[in-house]
Amino acid sequence: MTARIIDFLNTRRPDGPCLVVDLDVVRENYLTFAHALPDTRIFYAVKANPAPEVLALLASLGSNFDCASVAEIDMALAAGATPDRISYGNTIKKERDIAAAFARGIDLYSVDCEAEVEKVARAAPGVRVFCRILCDGAGAEWPLSRKFGCEPEMAIGVLEHAQALGLRAYGISFHVGSQQGNTEAWDGALASAAGIFHTLAERGIQLGMVNLGGGFPTKYLKDIPGVENYASSIDAALKRHFGNRIPETIIEPGRGMVGNAGIIKSEVVLISKKSADDEVRWVYLDIGKFGGLAETMDESIRYPIRTSHDGDAKTPCILAGPTCDSADVLYEKAPYELPVTLSIGDEVLIEGTGAYTTTYSAVAFNGFQPLASYII
Amino acid sequence: MTARIIDFLNTRRPDGPCLVVDLDVVRENYLTFAHALPDTRIFYAVKANPAPEVLALLASLGSNFDCASVAEIDMALAAGATPDRISYGNTIKKERDIAAAFARGIDLYSVDCEAEVEKVARAAPGVRVFCRILCDGAGAEWPLSRKFGCEPEMAIGVLEHAQALGLRAYGISFHVGSQQGNTEAWDGALASAAGIFHTLAERGIQLGMVNLGGGFPTKYLKDIPGVENYASSIDAALKRHFGNRIPETIIEPGRGMVGNAGIIKSEVVLISKKSADDEVRWVYLDIGKFGGLAETMDESIRYPIRTSHDGDAKTPCILAGPTCDSADVLYEKAPYELPVTLSIGDEVLIEGTGAYTTTYSAVAFNGFQPLASYII
Repeated sequence: MTARIIDFLNTRRPDGPCLVVDLDVVRENYLTFAHALPDTRIFYAVKANPAPEVLALLASLGSNFDCASVAEIDMALAAGATPDRISYGNTIKKERDIAAAFARGIDLYSVDCEAEVEKVARAAPGVRVFCRILCDGAGAEWPLSRKFGCEPEMAIGVLEHAQALGLRAYGISFHVGSQQGNTEAWDGALASAAGIFHTLAERGIQLGMVNLGGGFPTKYLKDIPGVENYASSIDAALKRHFGNRIPETIIEPGRGMVGNAGIIKSEVVLISKKSADDEVRWVYLDIGKFGGLAETMDESIRYPIRTSHDGDAKTPCILAGPTCDSADVLYEKAPYELPVTLSIGDEVLIEGTGAYTTTYSAVAFNGFQPLASYII
Repeated sequence: MTARIIDFLNTRRPDGPCLVVDLDVVRENYLTFAHALPDTRIFYAVKANPAPEVLALLASLGSNFDCASVAEIDMALAAGATPDRISYGNTIKKERDIAAAFARGIDLYSVDCEAEVEKVARAAPGVRVFCRILCDGAGAEWPLSRKFGCEPEMAIGVLEHAQALGLRAYGISFHVGSQQGNTEAWDGALASAAGIFHTLAERGIQLGMVNLGGGFPTKYLKDIPGVENYASSIDAALKRHFGNRIPETIIEPGRGMVGNAGIIKSEVVLISKKSADDEVRWVYLDIGKFGGLAETMDESIRYPIRTSHDGDAKTPCILAGPTCDSADVLYEKAPYELPVTLSIGDEVLIEGTGAYTTTYSAVAFNGFQPLASYII
């Protein structure tokens, strides 16, 4: 919650739900990462919030960009990043998209299997690749599946295959899970990475880089460790596993860069009970799972919600979105405490919504417009 | 799978994932409903697929329209429906949206609590309202929550309140759950509805209508009962509970009207394993949970998938989408059997995708375009 956002909402009074992002907070987050991890290059995860103003600010501050598609690469280029500051970080790429990235000068690609290496070797000869390894994700609030990465033993073969096909086997990446609350979560993956570096060195392949991924949390309801805590834990783990041969490192913050910079303004559309003796109220907002709050899936991310009645007594509510979809319920298994004085028509502010909201928004489900966004 | 769709795909060869909808199938579905339920008015659930061509066809056939928002009302009007053929079927409406619908001449509104009745009474004086009651949804494949509707006992008070505020207490609605496989699912709710009719009649309020909702399935992997089976079961339940005073009835098919009219064309982007001894393959498509296949949430809807290798031996696969989101996995708990000969770059056809796909698509998650749609 920043004074600039409150002032914007009071002055502009936009109709309908909207996200407002304060660029001053994004700047502060970038500088905090850069200060805490001075030897690490920052690749902003564009997918978290690709608003042109956010990308332009980060480009001007010196950030690099982790892109998931050719469209995101084009956005990063348009924001002023040069191709050497962009990685194509999706392990799942069409060969023609790899060719399009190569034509734009992109030199750094993510892989996690031999088939992907072969596509990169054909479509982007000679570029650098890093292999993503699996990580268990314990401690993360957003579920981490086995979708990306391979077992560390397999990564050795993947990178040997890359080198054999004329690519440059450049490093290892992993992801400790989004909204990771455990500052020690990087240790196990760094141990695996060091083992791969060692094995490949014995086979004549010198890796140079470890991509530490994202996972840096933003503050929702619970307090989170500061970036400096993550930095010192990662620094200690790097020294523990790599000794005096610390590789180049990069990080890919997304949520940690923009999450706390944004607030969604919403409106209470209806408050009701299902029977006279119902103990919880149903509170329906004008934004839900399909309007930008997709990360409430399985009630994973629990956003702080401010109302003008905060301070009044609270009772448990089931919180739901405005669409005619019975699955469009935000919090029900663990009801959300809201003021008893909350009324239909009241404005509510949903904090920590700068990341993973606008782009998740459905194009027009139930005829509702996608989430509007103002970058100030 | 229709010859027209196959011909379209072979001739046009669109790049990227897309939905193709065959209007001949929509016409056939409409006529099947109209024939099986000759005394029931059909209100197409616009949210299932609001493509202008679909709405225009249904309007020309005589369909009415169940709309979830003012934007959907405007689409139905633009397609040629008059206001008397449109209901505002969302129980969660902003008062200013009710006023906008009233200004367009809409006379039929859904409610499920007294607070919503009060909004309608203020913003749309004198209109007809129906009260939605809860239904357990047993037998449905898409989860039905308690989000919409109230307990039948409460509906009596809601409709009395409506009448007292100058509205016309017009009927009862319920929803037996989407993709409902049990043709008898309507019986319990019709018993409740008849009870409410009876109680209100004793209090001097004559209800006239039962809205039987949607729930009519489309064929995915399993065979489904024909519409005529649903019709005869509903007819018997109406007679059982209403005797010789059968009310006006309406249905709101969405999935049952357009689901089997559409096919999504997709492409295999990657096939991989996570370790040398992995027993399942990971198959990554260029469409996933955020590109239109949102109904794979919790693996609820299981689409039939056709490949050019059908007939070859099959092995279990984990099916996932193309985004950098670990939650973008379609089928994993119950892996999907696909041909061992399936290769990267192969086209796959996902059947039964005419409903609840395009509008669920995210605006630009990971930079991917929303699902393209061709109505032929």
